[in-house]
Amino acid sequence: MINQQYRAMLGERSVIRQLSEWSTARGAEIGYDNVFDFSLGNPSVPCPPHFTEVCRRLLENPDTVALHGYSPSATMPAVRAAVAASLQRRFGIPYTAQHVFMTSGAAGALAHALRCVGTPGQEVITVAPFFPEYGPYAAGAGLTLRVVPPRTADFQIDLAALEALLNANTAAVLINSPNNPSGAVYSEKTLRQLAALLARASQTYGHHIFLISDEPYREITFSGPVPCPARYYADTLMCYSFSKSLSIPGERIGYLAANPACEDAADIVNICAQISRGTGHNCPASLLQLAVAECLEDTSDLGVYAANMELLYAELKRLGFTVEKPGGTFYIFPKALEEDSVAFCEKAKKYDLALVPGDSFGCPGWFRMAYCISTEKLRRSLPVLERFVRAEYGPGRV
Amino acid sequence: MINQQYRAMLGERSVIRQLSEWSTARGAEIGYDNVFDFSLGNPSVPCPPHFTEVCRRLLENPDTVALHGYSPSATMPAVRAAVAASLQRRFGIPYTAQHVFMTSGAAGALAHALRCVGTPGQEVITVAPFFPEYGPYAAGAGLTLRVVPPRTADFQIDLAALEALLNANTAAVLINSPNNPSGAVYSEKTLRQLAALLARASQTYGHHIFLISDEPYREITFSGPVPCPARYYADTLMCYSFSKSLSIPGERIGYLAANPACEDAADIVNICAQISRGTGHNCPASLLQLAVAECLEDTSDLGVYAANMELLYAELKRLGFTVEKPGGTFYIFPKALEEDSVAFCEKAKKYDLALVPGDSFGCPGWFRMAYCISTEKLRRSLPVLERFVRAEYGPGRV
Repeated sequence: MINQQYRAMLGERSVIRQLSEWSTARGAEIGYDNVFDFSLGNPSVPCPPHFTEVCRRLLENPDTVALHGYSPSATMPAVRAAVAASLQRRFGIPYTAQHVFMTSGAAGALAHALRCVGTPGQEVITVAPFFPEYGPYAAGAGLTLRVVPPRTADFQIDLAALEALLNANTAAVLINSPNNPSGAVYSEKTLRQLAALLARASQTYGHHIFLISDEPYREITFSGPVPCPARYYADTLMCYSFSKSLSIPGERIGYLAANPACEDAADIVNICAQISRGTGHNCPASLLQLAVAECLEDTSDLGVYAANMELLYAELKRLGFTVEKPGGTFYIFPKALEEDSVAFCEKAKKYDLALVPGDSFGCPGWFRMAYCISTEKLRRSLPVLERFVRAEYGPGRV
Repeated sequence: MINQQYRAMLGERSVIRQLSEWSTARGAEIGYDNVFDFSLGNPSVPCPPHFTEVCRRLLENPDTVALHGYSPSATMPAVRAAVAASLQRRFGIPYTAQHVFMTSGAAGALAHALRCVGTPGQEVITVAPFFPEYGPYAAGAGLTLRVVPPRTADFQIDLAALEALLNANTAAVLINSPNNPSGAVYSEKTLRQLAALLARASQTYGHHIFLISDEPYREITFSGPVPCPARYYADTLMCYSFSKSLSIPGERIGYLAANPACEDAADIVNICAQISRGTGHNCPASLLQLAVAECLEDTSDLGVYAANMELLYAELKRLGFTVEKPGGTFYIFPKALEEDSVAFCEKAKKYDLALVPGDSFGCPGWFRMAYCISTEKLRRSLPVLERFVRAEYGPGRV
């Protein structure tokens, strides 16, 4: 008999996916070029040619038994060592191979991190606005997700509100910087204060509260390197994906890196290997582990996202939107022009604009635009955006 | 704080893996060529050249955004349709794309199948001897694994013993044919009787009891096609992996196929997509989904396993072992020459023979040999096996 809990989930359609399906259907009617689809966070730039070259060269290996063989349950030692060396060089944290576990993207890393430092019945705290899949990730690990309300003035963390949620049952705090959907980069100051707060709370509640840092957008940054949460708090599990940096989201490859100074640092990777036995994960594809190990500091040409951001941000400001300038990602998160952001986004569809209500991210009243589209199309969307705003919210606005 | 359940698992070392590590260490001392390592079920023949060609051709696609893009959460429709068409052609069951869900190997398929048709607290029944990872798979889904004792006369299923385990709390029966470790292929008669039994029990207990059929060895068969469990019982979820047939175990690709006549057939794939949200699975790699779709009826040159089996079986019989001739897989499962098969396998190590005690598979007193090694090495192992048997169990034996 089918599991009723999962059956119930069939009803909960993802708003983002529904909107993307609407865009596709509308595109079939009027031409997809004429639909301004800001719904999905799908990289729009090619992968680096070096990634393709590495894959093709790996496939020349005549020893296919070695090439396509099982990787050890803790994933490939040489790949883990390469990731650790790169992280060490970039962030000055003494990671070694024993702290790195290769995963099926950030989703896999988060699923392992939550099971590793959480016990069913405990709580994990995240900060709005947040990626809606954190709900199923936490539920899958048997944890309750508690949400810190958004600090809409700058989309940093409302630390007082976070502190109010901490309790003896808190296993971890889950953050995402650069942030989907707000584009905010948590500042050094935010991270230092968060670290101090978690250190105090760990003391108070008698157990280490872990920081799980979801960093798939780390390389898409518009003003220099993003502050690395693990540098400020020892008990940090970094969750990374190559999906956005190399534009290979379908290849499901990323990693979890445990700060060498964290509690039980030497055991965490081995515990992840045990977790995998129950989830059927059993390592990302060998070919892709080997490939990314040679592309650790490559990125796609991410400049298009910066160019799009500048154009869109300027136009949104000109149109009178309240909007924070993104520090990274390929998202921007303005305030809707009416209180009900679902109604706002519904009206936008009349103009063939697909915008995602902030409600999906725990932040009603705001909306997300994913500008991982061509700059040419982005330019064409701007007059449409203006037409929408003038027609629906009064020509006096602009 | 680290999850204590997973921490406890760190202590439970896999006997097979320990033995494989012993072989590697012993190989470092005396040369790996001189260690007869029958421990691991790792394919030893190259992948078909066609698989490599397909991968290389796919990588020539200049549209890397499409090539490496996200696959839909229910996995790629064209890939699913290709798998369904192949299954339909081969087994005469009217699978369509909506019944197929691509997974990270058979492990991923089993993890989804168990969560799909089981509810935490229920039971799943398997049949000894069985693959030891069924334990963690069941535990990960919150299910209790119950084990039907082995029918050592022929390693078919002891149906009376299975019937005695069925109860109102039984969610599913999990079988594996061709079987790891016994090499047995369940006969049509066995499958028909099993189907009748499950149909009756479903009636008695008022809910459909699913059959989960783990089939990674389906293509490694020594006497014609293996009877397909889904042909005999409608409520069957077929779990397949390309690991053994294409010799690509590290690439983690397989599928779950729900019999179109099973309960809720139209929902199962969508439920699997929901399950993935919690486990962080999110589809096997896009490149590999696309690649296997073009290699569905290719196999590696599997003939070496048949050749090895014949040589080894003949020698084991000559040495006086009680042993069933395998119908498939690259395993053989003889009776040990003393009651304590752990002691038997420990003695074998003195002769640089790595044999796995049947205790790991729920069948003490027997042992497994994985003969996925070169035929040349297998030939060299035979006199060593004879020396071991004569020295330890009396020269009068042979």
